Amino acid sequence: MGDPLVKLQLSELSEIITKAGFPAKLEGEDRGITGVNTLSDARAGEITFLSNPRYATSVQETAASAVIARPGAEIPESLSVLRCDDPYGAVTVAIITLHGHRRHPRWGISPQASIDASARIGANPNIAAGVTIAAEVVVGDNCTFYPGCYLAEGVRVGNDCTLYPNVVIYNRCELGHRVTIHAGSVIGEDGLGYAPHGEKWVKIPQVGRALIGDDVEIGANCAIDRATLGQTEIGAGTKLGNVVVIGHGTKIGPDCMFVGLVGVAGSVTVGRHVTLAGQVGVAGHLAIGDGAMIGAQSGIAGDVEANASVFGSPAIPMENAKRSMYVFQKLPDWVRRIKDLEREVRELREKLIEQSHSEPRAPAAGR
Amino acid sequence: MGDPLVKLQLSELSEIITKAGFPAKLEGEDRGITGVNTLSDARAGEITFLSNPRYATSVQETAASAVIARPGAEIPESLSVLRCDDPYGAVTVAIITLHGHRRHPRWGISPQASIDASARIGANPNIAAGVTIAAEVVVGDNCTFYPGCYLAEGVRVGNDCTLYPNVVIYNRCELGHRVTIHAGSVIGEDGLGYAPHGEKWVKIPQVGRALIGDDVEIGANCAIDRATLGQTEIGAGTKLGNVVVIGHGTKIGPDCMFVGLVGVAGSVTVGRHVTLAGQVGVAGHLAIGDGAMIGAQSGIAGDVEANASVFGSPAIPMENAKRSMYVFQKLPDWVRRIKDLEREVRELREKLIEQSHSEPRAPAAGR
Amino acid sequence: MGDPLVKLQLSELSEIITKAGFPAKLEGEDRGITGVNTLSDARAGEITFLSNPRYATSVQETAASAVIARPGAEIPESLSVLRCDDPYGAVTVAIITLHGHRRHPRWGISPQASIDASARIGANPNIAAGVTIAAEVVVGDNCTFYPGCYLAEGVRVGNDCTLYPNVVIYNRCELGHRVTIHAGSVIGEDGLGYAPHGEKWVKIPQVGRALIGDDVEIGANCAIDRATLGQTEIGAGTKLGNVVVIGHGTKIGPDCMFVGLVGVAGSVTVGRHVTLAGQVGVAGHLAIGDGAMIGAQSGIAGDVEANASVFGSPAIPMENAKRSMYVFQKLPDWVRRIKDLEREVRELREKLIEQSHSEPRAPAAGR
Repeated sequence: MGDPLVKLQLSELSEIITKAGFPAKLEGEDRGITGVNTLSDARAGEITFLSNPRYATSVQETAASAVIARPGAEIPESLSVLRCDDPYGAVTVAIITLHGHRRHPRWGISPQASIDASARIGANPNIAAGVTIAAEVVVGDNCTFYPGCYLAEGVRVGNDCTLYPNVVIYNRCELGHRVTIHAGSVIGEDGLGYAPHGEKWVKIPQVGRALIGDDVEIGANCAIDRATLGQTEIGAGTKLGNVVVIGHGTKIGPDCMFVGLVGVAGSVTVGRHVTLAGQVGVAGHLAIGDGAMIGAQSGIAGDVEANASVFGSPAIPMENAKRSMYVFQKLPDWVRRIKDLEREVRELREKLIEQSHSEPRAPAAGR
Repeated sequence: MGDPLVKLQLSELSEIITKAGFPAKLEGEDRGITGVNTLSDARAGEITFLSNPRYATSVQETAASAVIARPGAEIPESLSVLRCDDPYGAVTVAIITLHGHRRHPRWGISPQASIDASARIGANPNIAAGVTIAAEVVVGDNCTFYPGCYLAEGVRVGNDCTLYPNVVIYNRCELGHRVTIHAGSVIGEDGLGYAPHGEKWVKIPQVGRALIGDDVEIGANCAIDRATLGQTEIGAGTKLGNVVVIGHGTKIGPDCMFVGLVGVAGSVTVGRHVTLAGQVGVAGHLAIGDGAMIGAQSGIAGDVEANASVFGSPAIPMENAKRSMYVFQKLPDWVRRIKDLEREVRELREKLIEQSHSEPRAPAAGR
Repeated sequence: MGDPLVKLQLSELSEIITKAGFPAKLEGEDRGITGVNTLSDARAGEITFLSNPRYATSVQETAASAVIARPGAEIPESLSVLRCDDPYGAVTVAIITLHGHRRHPRWGISPQASIDASARIGANPNIAAGVTIAAEVVVGDNCTFYPGCYLAEGVRVGNDCTLYPNVVIYNRCELGHRVTIHAGSVIGEDGLGYAPHGEKWVKIPQVGRALIGDDVEIGANCAIDRATLGQTEIGAGTKLGNVVVIGHGTKIGPDCMFVGLVGVAGSVTVGRHVTLAGQVGVAGHLAIGDGAMIGAQSGIAGDVEANASVFGSPAIPMENAKRSMYVFQKLPDWVRRIKDLEREVRELREKLIEQSHSEPRAPAAGR
């Protein structure tokens, strides 16, 4: 009550979560909540959550005052519980409610930013010291650019975009609305476009661009090539992890999720809502269908059908890959069994020959 | 004709391409050309190209006015055609002719660059705001450094080099002439040089440097270690993709091509014109011979001979790797066949024993 | 003697190395030493070392004046030798003694750094132009921040830390004492924290932080996610190579060594003194025990026991993996042997049937 750290009563939070589409029911005392935290890091006053059954025992030891958990999950009596079928969805709402999204510093337009006179900047700009905006750049409303960002000639940025420090956008590339790019990522650099001339590599001017759709979020230290001609595209709502590398002219659909260290070569077409797990590699000029799931470290060397789940390098259907990998781990045993078979067959053959030789030509004798 | 966007007549372009070493022949109308584009992105007035047969059907739907294609390739009648045996070479010439290479902003020496008084800068400098050049740096003529670049003490840069934003060159490293480094790449950072002392890692001062040869182009967000002693070397004309990581003391020959996310450990020797495809890893202290080709995601755990083509992790000759990978995908079938064999051999053995037992000791009986 | 480049006599160096815990004995002439270098790069006056037997022949051709080598190693007569059981440890001492660690430029607090009035900076600061330090940041004594570094609101940095150019530390993250981070690395960016909502990804505010322990060194262009809740941790004394990517909420123990391009997903627990070789990937929510060694390019898909040595994707015990990989490379041969067996077994079966048919029903006949 009087605790200034308390942001909300549990009963209020329950109502907010329910209204957000995750029906929740409070069990136990209605307490004041100061924040959300993990099972192991939470302190008294905080609410935590139990979603992954792997952590069922940790809930016995948490110092939290409340927990979001599925109906039926065993929770110590000392904790208040918000019962909810989707604890992960519910805790997302709790975090947004109690903590909110990152608040950026307010720079306005820093006098130490370098902005070309021909650039057009929208309403409510937030541009830090050390940002450089080149000629003919167009920036929408409510954009935040952290220090060290560089927007080259003719770049276009939509509304409500955030570029964290040292993000570089090459010339004529375009970002949609509500795009977020984390520190150190580079959009629109030249790809490996060379024409071989004997052993030499003759550079092909990379005159295309890269286009980043609305609501895309890109992790730290990624690199998205511009196209040689035409454009590289990242579809609306797609999320890329850290150090994702996308080749020139590749077109990625909406709502995809690529995890860290993924590399996609050039001229690849990826459908909507495709998942590439960590360290996946995709060769050039391939097509990956809508909804496909590619397991970690897979190497994609051929087209992937819509909704396929594939794994391995080169990747094959997930279940086949798991079976083959299981056999792989026992290969020395199978080699032994093959050798045993060879020995036994040799013995059988010898025995058979021996038998047929040692036989008294029975038929003849019998006649 | 009167169209201000027209840059060249098709007949003129044909002549230029032919003179550049790719004999071309115009079929159809001599049109004014505004630019080069892909089959799918081209608009009326543009020229496109058909090199990869995979895209043969797309040429039926292109909005381009002209196309570069091999003799015999089927092209709709509405399009003018430049017939040429090497469409990829020809389109490279067309792009250079019609679009040219990137033109950089002109900063001269920005007053917001920080340049140590002891640094020597060559003729015609182009150094942006936010560049820092430390003591005793020597820079050649016609160099362009974008914002956020850092050249540490004693760095030497040749003529006609381009460093895109936020490139960092550590102390005493050296770039040759016409070197291009894309945004966020780091040259000459300390490698993983530690001496183990119990469980602790004692840092070995990394007193060597990195040397980047003439005409090298390096992608975005790469990291090229300095040597512990002596020097890491990237040979003249070599091209590195994005996020390529090179270990300390490694020496790479001229005209190599390394694709994105390649990692080469320390003290490796790579010959000339070697190709490492995406996500290849090379262990330390190995040698890779001239002209070797390493397939994507391969792991190199031993020396590779000149002109070898290897694949897999650990890598073996390409053809062997493909055969083994093919069998791998069928391993559960082979396991079944081994089990079938075991059953059959067991049955045969039993039958043979049965037969030999049930026999009336024929020879004895016969005598 | 009179040579101004001579830094030390060999006999003095021998004494220093011995005192540092690596007993050394001088054989041959006591010479003046100008520096340490590799076998191939060393010039007259320099000392080199022979540790890896792979380079035994190179010592015959070195231009060095002295060499550190094991007792018994064959060294040309023209060279003085420091005999020592641990040449690698001894040369580390020699490099520290003769060359020392990197000396940074001295900027004090550059007037072109942007430092918020609420930030507190310790004694003896060394903060370059183009550094931005946001509100409520606390920095310890003797810290060096190169140009382009960004420390967001509430970041805390211990004493004696070095941030090379363009390092970015997100809000509220914390570095211990003597932390070194190489150029372009990012600490505390948001991880891939989204709640799925149909095909859309709803961003979960990432309200945790990242904590970097004392004596950690991080390579270039790495990315260490902040935790969604709680904290991501890198244990004291751990060393990360270039482009290492660590997921949100992962906790890594002390004195680990992760080589380049390693990716660890979120919520992983790694013990002390764990080695992840190049391009290793670790899936989320796993535990890796103390002292484990993970071979290059391995994919960790399950918990790893303390002191285990594992390899492969998915990883299995190192020796098993090597045996399976060996068989893998011969799979086409084994397939041939299985087919041979099938043919032979078929022949045997036929022969056996033939024999049993051609037999005169001997037993019956004999009775």
